[in-house]
Formats: sequence, C-alpha cells, structure tokens
Amino acid sequence: MNGKIAETRARFLYWQKVPTRWMDNDQYGHVNNAHYYSFIDTVVNKMLMEKQVLKGPHWNAIGLVIASACEFMAPISFPDVIDCGLRIGKIGNTSLRYEVGLFKEHDPDPCALAHFTHVFVDPQTRRPVPLAAEVRTAMSTLLAQS
Amino acid sequence: MNGKIAETRARFLYWQKVPTRWMDNDQYGHVNNAHYYSFIDTVVNKMLMEKQVLKGPHWNAIGLVIASACEFMAPISFPDVIDCGLRIGKIGNTSLRYEVGLFKEHDPDPCALAHFTHVFVDPQTRRPVPLAAEVRTAMSTLLAQS
Amino acid sequence: MNGKIAETRARFLYWQKVPTRWMDNDQYGHVNNAHYYSFIDTVVNKMLMEKQVLKGPHWNAIGLVIASACEFMAPISFPDVIDCGLRIGKIGNTSLRYEVGLFKEHDPDPCALAHFTHVFVDPQTRRPVPLAAEVRTAMSTLLAQS
Amino acid sequence: MNGKIAETRARFLYWQKVPTRWMDNDQYGHVNNAHYYSFIDTVVNKMLMEKQVLKGPHWNAIGLVIASACEFMAPISFPDVIDCGLRIGKIGNTSLRYEVGLFKEHDPDPCALAHFTHVFVDPQTRRPVPLAAEVRTAMSTLLAQS
Repeated sequence: MNGKIAETRARFLYWQKVPTRWMDNDQYGHVNNAHYYSFIDTVVNKMLMEKQVLKGPHWNAIGLVIASACEFMAPISFPDVIDCGLRIGKIGNTSLRYEVGLFKEHDPDPCALAHFTHVFVDPQTRRPVPLAAEVRTAMSTLLAQS
Repeated sequence: MNGKIAETRARFLYWQKVPTRWMDNDQYGHVNNAHYYSFIDTVVNKMLMEKQVLKGPHWNAIGLVIASACEFMAPISFPDVIDCGLRIGKIGNTSLRYEVGLFKEHDPDPCALAHFTHVFVDPQTRRPVPLAAEVRTAMSTLLAQS
Repeated sequence: MNGKIAETRARFLYWQKVPTRWMDNDQYGHVNNAHYYSFIDTVVNKMLMEKQVLKGPHWNAIGLVIASACEFMAPISFPDVIDCGLRIGKIGNTSLRYEVGLFKEHDPDPCALAHFTHVFVDPQTRRPVPLAAEVRTAMSTLLAQS
Repeated sequence: MNGKIAETRARFLYWQKVPTRWMDNDQYGHVNNAHYYSFIDTVVNKMLMEKQVLKGPHWNAIGLVIASACEFMAPISFPDVIDCGLRIGKIGNTSLRYEVGLFKEHDPDPCALAHFTHVFVDPQTRRPVPLAAEVRTAMSTLLAQS
C-alpha cells in the first residue's frame, strides 16, 4: 500500500460483505488477527469464482498464496459487518496481487489494509501456469488506478 | 428435534444469514462440521444481543454452552449463504435451550438441525444465575410452538 | 454416552494430544465450543489415517459426518493441552460411531464427552460404501468395552 | 526478513510445536493461509505468558497486533506437526516485533517466514503503555542476532 495515498472506499473496485461470527472474537473482545486473513481470502476467492478465474471454462488452475500482509488500524468486534473492498494490484505472468481494504459498515476509513499474492498452478502438478488471456482481460477491469 | 415433525422454515422464529467463508471448506470441498457450530453460536449470540439478554439493562450474565448436537442432512460449500433459523426449545431456571435449523438460501429443507443449551452464569464467579423476568418474557416470544 | 458409567481415561483406547491455540479462546476467556468439534475431528481422522482406513490400500472411501454431539463439563483455556481419547462405539455397515473423551493433561476427569458418526462414501459419487473387511478388523481393536 | 541471510533453525531462539488439525486443510488439501497466522499468534502468546510479559507481576498490558506478514515457501498438510521458531526483531518503546520461522518437523528449511508487531496497551483505556524494564530485559534474551 502506498502510505501517501489515502485509502478511501473509492479506490476499491469489487465488494463483498463479511459478517463477523461470535467465535471470531478472541479473549480481548475483538476479532483475532488471523480471521482478517480469512475475510480477505473469502473476498478474493468469491471474486475469482464470479469472474470465472476459478472453475472457468478457459482455464484450469488453482491459486496458492505465496505472500500476504495486513496493517490493522482499528479493532472490529462481533456483530460488526465488514465491507471488504478489492482491487488488483498487479497482473503477473503466473500470479495476481490483490489489495484489500476492510471497512466497518458506514465507516469511510479502513479498519485494515492488506495485500495478498496468488501464484496459479496446475491442480495436479502444482507447477505455475501462465494466466489465460481471458483471465488477464477479466482481471484488468479491477486493476488499481494509478 | 422431533423426528415426526417436518422441520420447515415456518417452525423457526428468528433468522440470521451466515455467508460461508473460503476456509470453511475442508479437503472434501464442503464446509467442515465444526464450522456449523460456529454458525449456530453466531445466530444465538446475535439474537441474545438484540433482545438485550447479553449486555442487557436488567441482568448481567453470560451464557456458557453445556451441551450441543447437530444432525447433518446435506452438504454445504463456499460460497453458499446459510439461513439460520432459531427458536427457543425450553426456558429453564438458569438455562435456555435453542433449536436451530440451517437452510441453504431458497431451499425449503434444512441442511442441518441442531440444538444447543446455555447455562447463564455470573461473569466473575461463574456460578449459575436465574433468568431475569425480562429475559423470560423476551425469550418466550421465540418459544417453539407445540 | 452412558450416564451411569464413570467416563475414566481407561475407557478410551486411542489417544492424541491437541494443544489449544491462542485464538481458540473466545471473549469469555475459554475455548469456544465449536473448536471442541475440531479437536474431535482431528483425533478421529488421525486415527483413521494411522489405521489406513483413510487412504488405505484396501479401500477408497471418505468419512462424512452425519451427526455429532458434545457435553461440556469444565472450561478449558489456552495454553491448556487436551488429551483426546477415542473408542469406537459402533461398527455399522457403512458407518462408524466414535466416542471421544477430552481431558486436560493430568486430570483424571473429562472436561467434555462427545460422539460423532461418519458414514463412508465413495469420493466421486458420494454414495455410501460398505466397510471393507480390513477396516472392520482394524476398528474392532478400538471397540468400546461393555 | 533479510533475503540475504538463510533462515535456518539456528536463528530462532524460542520454540513451540503446533500440530495441525484436520480442519486446517482447505479444499486444496493443504493448510489454509489464515491458519498460519494462528500458529504464529500461538507461539508469540505462549512465550509472552512464560516470560510473564502477559499476566506478569510487574506490568499489566495486552498486546494488540498492528501489522503482520507471511511468506509461504512450501505447503503443509494435516497431520504435519509444525515447529514454530521465534525471535524478537525489535524492542520498541511500546511495541515488540516478532520474527517467526515455521518448519515441518525434521526439515531444516522453513515452510513459512513471518513477522508480527504487537503494540502494548492498557486493557481498559486501550492506550499504548511503555514496556516495563523487566519486560525489556526478558525480551532482550530473545533478540535477533545481527
């Protein structure tokens, strides 16, 4: 994430609501940090399914996470509902970098900012495979605005 | 649950949607059984908060689970959204029994049926405390129809 | 579980240690009820792998949970380590019923008692398949003593 | 992490074993990325408890995660047992940075490398509090060797 650009909702191009669950809260009464990565994983994979990148007609590959990171700005707690905003940060040869902003409903400022990189591999050999042309086209509609 | 009565949506009186998350799926490609209990926990605690049974003005107690059970009728998978229906099965002196039906969106038949009993205790001493009159009244509106 | 028989460690025939994790604790400072089912799932599947019931040479089937239940006697908290004891309650035609006792390390009394039933199905068709003779033999060594 | 220094086991100074659980595996048959953060959280908090940084006699503060990141080098799967190695990367005024290496048992090379920063706050006000002298001393024994 670029520290100089304010990360507003407008900078994210695909959205998914993730309601928190009771057990997401840890003993400090807020959502445990590991669950944020599950929210991020969920918005990414939901988008990939909708855009036919996973289980698509043109391509047979699965996305393995090779790196992820998150900054936590404000706590969230059950029963908060989290608006997860997504954009594509980079389209690589065999990989996609996602940038995700987590916002509490009705809050203009993010409670967390994350990024996450998938390398796409063949489900059997687990060797990287280049992104299909249709995938590159679909993903470019969500590419971060510079 | 009574095996002789068909468990339709009409028999549940409070509802909460729980979207599945990517990581809920286990290696068989469906939601792992343990996560169902988290869905159930979520609908129960959300209702208790809304009805001011948890964090209420009349009463200071927390609900500890003493027993739970679930029957699994049909698999669910990410990105299914689960409609969780709740009714109160029994109002005890210091406890509540909840009955929960899990339904895939738009499906009239349950994919799982569960029950779950909370005993209410003092947060400090962890000793059982009788349900406040206001709690009994609020919970009776969700009591199972015989 | 039979309420009349004291559920001592001696009544369980296969053991697995499950250390708790920080995020297992919920906002009441003890392990959330849903995680117990994950502990149970873990001891059952570990045993099935060791006994070559899953991924075995004689048989190709996966176990789907059709019912589970748990009674909670005493709270547990991170960093407790839980001794999970397992026995087979019933060997059916296409199913196995497991009975699991959870004990805090060094504690003779269970903190939770659970049961759990798998029906075994073909991984592709998801139709039930009869237990192979080798599976029945292996499981009978863990059968509950009357 | 410094890309130029090979991250061997010798560079980590505190160890905790975390066995995987059945449900850690996602539908690709390996441990889901979010669970790695739970393993990391577990080794950090276990160490903090043992060193009396959490619940210590000298100090009353809780650690809130403000940033975390992980690189994933090799997949892990249930029933793998993960050796989690920890060192302190930086002792700040009100914060600690932890560096964690995850290794499959008997494997000299890490399957994942992570870092994680806690800011310590007052449990009531949630305002940062300076590390107590005893905490600084205890943590310096785990400080990364340059």
